[in-house]
Amino acid sequence: MATALILLAAGQGTRMNSDRPKVLHEVAHAPLLVHAMRAGAALDPEVTVIVAGHGADDVAKAARDWDETAAVVLQEEQLGTGHAVLQARAELAGFDGDAVVLYGDTPFIRAETLEAMQSARASHDVVVLGFEAADPARYGRLVLEGETLTRIVEYKDASDAERAITLCNSGVVAAKAETLFALLDAVGNSNAAGEYYLTDIVEIARERGLSATAVTCDEAETLGVNTREQLAAAEAAFQAQARAEMLDLGVTLTAPETVFFAFDTVVGRDAAIEPNVVFGPGVTVESGAKIRAFSHLEGCHVSRGAVVGPYARLRPGAELAENTHIGNFVEIKNAQIDEGAKINHLSYVGDAHVGARTNIGAGTITCNYDGVFKHHTEIGADAFIGSNTMLVAPVRIGDGVLTASGSVITSDVEDHALAIARAKQETKPGYGRRLMQMLRAKKAKGTH
Amino acid sequence: MATALILLAAGQGTRMNSDRPKVLHEVAHAPLLVHAMRAGAALDPEVTVIVAGHGADDVAKAARDWDETAAVVLQEEQLGTGHAVLQARAELAGFDGDAVVLYGDTPFIRAETLEAMQSARASHDVVVLGFEAADPARYGRLVLEGETLTRIVEYKDASDAERAITLCNSGVVAAKAETLFALLDAVGNSNAAGEYYLTDIVEIARERGLSATAVTCDEAETLGVNTREQLAAAEAAFQAQARAEMLDLGVTLTAPETVFFAFDTVVGRDAAIEPNVVFGPGVTVESGAKIRAFSHLEGCHVSRGAVVGPYARLRPGAELAENTHIGNFVEIKNAQIDEGAKINHLSYVGDAHVGARTNIGAGTITCNYDGVFKHHTEIGADAFIGSNTMLVAPVRIGDGVLTASGSVITSDVEDHALAIARAKQETKPGYGRRLMQMLRAKKAKGTH
Amino acid sequence: MATALILLAAGQGTRMNSDRPKVLHEVAHAPLLVHAMRAGAALDPEVTVIVAGHGADDVAKAARDWDETAAVVLQEEQLGTGHAVLQARAELAGFDGDAVVLYGDTPFIRAETLEAMQSARASHDVVVLGFEAADPARYGRLVLEGETLTRIVEYKDASDAERAITLCNSGVVAAKAETLFALLDAVGNSNAAGEYYLTDIVEIARERGLSATAVTCDEAETLGVNTREQLAAAEAAFQAQARAEMLDLGVTLTAPETVFFAFDTVVGRDAAIEPNVVFGPGVTVESGAKIRAFSHLEGCHVSRGAVVGPYARLRPGAELAENTHIGNFVEIKNAQIDEGAKINHLSYVGDAHVGARTNIGAGTITCNYDGVFKHHTEIGADAFIGSNTMLVAPVRIGDGVLTASGSVITSDVEDHALAIARAKQETKPGYGRRLMQMLRAKKAKGTH
Repeated sequence: MATALILLAAGQGTRMNSDRPKVLHEVAHAPLLVHAMRAGAALDPEVTVIVAGHGADDVAKAARDWDETAAVVLQEEQLGTGHAVLQARAELAGFDGDAVVLYGDTPFIRAETLEAMQSARASHDVVVLGFEAADPARYGRLVLEGETLTRIVEYKDASDAERAITLCNSGVVAAKAETLFALLDAVGNSNAAGEYYLTDIVEIARERGLSATAVTCDEAETLGVNTREQLAAAEAAFQAQARAEMLDLGVTLTAPETVFFAFDTVVGRDAAIEPNVVFGPGVTVESGAKIRAFSHLEGCHVSRGAVVGPYARLRPGAELAENTHIGNFVEIKNAQIDEGAKINHLSYVGDAHVGARTNIGAGTITCNYDGVFKHHTEIGADAFIGSNTMLVAPVRIGDGVLTASGSVITSDVEDHALAIARAKQETKPGYGRRLMQMLRAKKAKGTH
Repeated sequence: MATALILLAAGQGTRMNSDRPKVLHEVAHAPLLVHAMRAGAALDPEVTVIVAGHGADDVAKAARDWDETAAVVLQEEQLGTGHAVLQARAELAGFDGDAVVLYGDTPFIRAETLEAMQSARASHDVVVLGFEAADPARYGRLVLEGETLTRIVEYKDASDAERAITLCNSGVVAAKAETLFALLDAVGNSNAAGEYYLTDIVEIARERGLSATAVTCDEAETLGVNTREQLAAAEAAFQAQARAEMLDLGVTLTAPETVFFAFDTVVGRDAAIEPNVVFGPGVTVESGAKIRAFSHLEGCHVSRGAVVGPYARLRPGAELAENTHIGNFVEIKNAQIDEGAKINHLSYVGDAHVGARTNIGAGTITCNYDGVFKHHTEIGADAFIGSNTMLVAPVRIGDGVLTASGSVITSDVEDHALAIARAKQETKPGYGRRLMQMLRAKKAKGTH
Repeated sequence: MATALILLAAGQGTRMNSDRPKVLHEVAHAPLLVHAMRAGAALDPEVTVIVAGHGADDVAKAARDWDETAAVVLQEEQLGTGHAVLQARAELAGFDGDAVVLYGDTPFIRAETLEAMQSARASHDVVVLGFEAADPARYGRLVLEGETLTRIVEYKDASDAERAITLCNSGVVAAKAETLFALLDAVGNSNAAGEYYLTDIVEIARERGLSATAVTCDEAETLGVNTREQLAAAEAAFQAQARAEMLDLGVTLTAPETVFFAFDTVVGRDAAIEPNVVFGPGVTVESGAKIRAFSHLEGCHVSRGAVVGPYARLRPGAELAENTHIGNFVEIKNAQIDEGAKINHLSYVGDAHVGARTNIGAGTITCNYDGVFKHHTEIGADAFIGSNTMLVAPVRIGDGVLTASGSVITSDVEDHALAIARAKQETKPGYGRRLMQMLRAKKAKGTH
């Protein structure tokens, strides 16, 4: 059956103490909302409706950056989860399938869990996701008779027997879209908060002779984020899982607890990652590559046998071919580095192509920006770029070229040529001593 | 009532295995002693007396660096806490107020706790600070009858009933200064160690018909530092608290456990701090600024909207205005960077002023030191400093100036001029190949 | 009695999910195998025999890199631990002493433990190392009667009474070499796996009237590595121990959990190490030196009073004399830096000697590589190397020399001279503005 996701993402998140809408706070470089969308993608949804409220424009933008087909509807007032879901009704007019309600601040629901809910829908009209709480505290409880969910009871309304139940309500719900909206029409707001609660549909369904059931997941999957402490805990949970998965895949992590992955980091078997490495989004590291300590990678590709760092910064568009070496205090941006090339020290290479086996000396800079435009630097294969060469782009350095250290290269250099731009050295005997004596004398007199 | 602090800071700290006096070991970039002084400052003391012994000169210096009004007295021999407190007597001659005894190796007493002791003094002559110990072990026990503290009993002298007491002695004491010294006069040293114990005043007070009581604090507040393990634990406790406070204030910390704050770090709401950031003393980060991974900040100010790092090093006197960008492998020292200016790569800017919207190219260095003096570099607004420009200070670069990359600028440049100091590029066809062939031939012959 | 070590190192380590033989995975920059060899070295062995199998060539190389006298024998097929030990027989022909069987994937056996086994050999023919397991799970159990070890029973074969035993088998065994091989001759392979088990010798010994006993060690010592999670746990265990030892020795570690030591790191008392420092192999740091945050050290020596970092990279052969300063974004390789010299910013100094009190300006590079050979740079004492000086090696800079910033120095400079290689600065009034206007106009027209 076709599935529609309804993602509730309207809350302000007051306890976050932030101007940013709660669902746009990030875990592993993706907004919470996107994590929820990624979770929901396991159901291969035909329609995704984001119910936005606080910061709706930013929420809409983030949703569409991830999935440009996502529909975004506005919940003008926050009148409860039931009211929020109803805002999706117009978008789902005529949609003949299931609706699954997820939460933009609950990033970790697993595919298997959503699939289990989908399966349970075969024999029940409404499926609610529950979790066995280690400490049920004040969560709502799922009251089951056999596999039938008879009602969801709020803690404050629960009897002692009900409070003894440890199966708690996650809020995630699946039902036929049509059914869901019909049930929601019957939900009232005569409660202390004056809100319309999605959970009330279970009792209404029962009154109408529909059947409801619960599917159970790990408590960790339903971890919601309401404070920055919880956000940090969610990040930690993500990282712990990512590190464990990397180890299982055969990645060497010397000190897993010091490596931070992004939501989409891919690392191959027998790649080695030393302590203190940070991955931004969009990184792929092939098997057998080595990422040394204190490196920072974003939007880049590192091929087999490459050695990166320590202290390498790879920025978006850095493409390292096999057996390249990127050394310390080196920044690479939007540059293709061909097989076996080396950029080992204190360099900036941006908007460039470096040919195979070329050696880039310490302190080399591609001067790619003229204050208005960015320009490209092309360097051939087997070239030797002397230390502290300035390559003023646009410029083309041929194969096998040598540049003399300290040269500013402004014109193209043909293959196998030597390029040099350097003043002649003059040595003035005794002048070093005189100059220092003069300065020290000034200091002694305090005339400076 | 006026308050005097007496800070005991004479111990050697043998178990620290260090040449440095124990109270000068640091937590969060402040000596333990200064943490204790900061704690005591909650009482707004009229007089502060530091009782120094081992390394007294260094201790005195550290105390006065923090509070130049602090009096420092010398305890020549370490004859016990009672003896130590008596060394403060001369400094407090004629002082008509309360004395509170604190310890230089106990950094975490809270203001609320000291205020509670102050309040308790209203109805009791002597107030002792106790803590409920999770594991009372060999601590001295506070024996109470109702709210009356009858005596402090050492573990080894305690009966089984007394050993069952879990309220333990922190050593912190408050009393009228005059009373305190009078009681100490009666303290003897007929014990195994031959020392004069401050704690003995409780029994003497009682004998004299004075009343004593206890105030209770968290065990964590009385954490003392005797070994480097405990020092590291104190640092960890400080950091855990600082991180939690930052999260509460609305600061984004991706991985709180990797961020190290100094005792005086201030960070605004919705500022974001990525993993692996270290703060030295004297840093203020405004709301909405972003501190990226692997950055190191000391004595600097970062304004709203600024982006710092990754791998930025801000040293004392770095003042970043709004929306500035300080990038990777960039060091800023004693420099004002005006609104919107950018220094993105591999640069050193020290003793300088960079005007608004100016762009500093990669590899730029302000050559501020001539071997004897430091000189200033002035750069105007809307300038474009080409990559690898050397600015030999003192020098003034005007508004809207362009410098050609690779130039050494030694003379002032007027507004809107272009400055260039560069040798002409020569290209020698085929010479790159010949040179490499020659070198390789040498290598083949082993003639090198 | 003379001792021979037999180190079993043939396993593939399938669960490591790696092309690398298991025993070559590293903890603290040494292969597991080398850790086991280092542990065994406590017995001062006369002979060391490595039984290799998977990746035997690489294993042999690693063993001999550590101890060139180590013999390496090949176990062609992996037919069990008993079979593995028998492969060492030919190497030990005529050896009249004890054999101790250790495991290449068990890095942490303590010297005291092996010595205790040696002592126990005085009164028993066979000594087996056991450990009290917190959770004995499916380990083999050591069945003792008094101090006599009667048999080792596999979990699956154990009675309930035997399963209640918590003393488990580590697999480490000591016996006279001759006895060991004689007993192994009697071991059969009629078990589910069809393997020859070393542990079977205990029962055979007993049948033959030989006595066996067990020595007990901490469970942590017998920690074996079978997965990358366990490898990471072993690394963490090593680091925790190393950090605790450093603290005991009087080293200041602000945040011990962020400092990573190598297996051979030596740090002196009252040296201070800030957060996020990584040590590769071969580092010695003297007392009172300071290693600041984000530094990376390998194969180097740091003398008393030196200050390193933040962001300093010391590579093999960096020798820092007393009171040297190596600052941020500075890389030192194979270079002697004499007393009081300073290299504070953004520099690369390799294959060099820097004289006492010399100051190396920001952005200085020793251009040590010409594409084929590495050359030496010699810098005298009391020299002042201006910012961004390129020192094209081989070159000799005399004592007290000044180089002008931005100079490329290709010829030797005599003592106390000034060396300069710099184009004259030209300033073109208004040209900066015109250039920017032109670029902006292009942009506006979109003609770029």
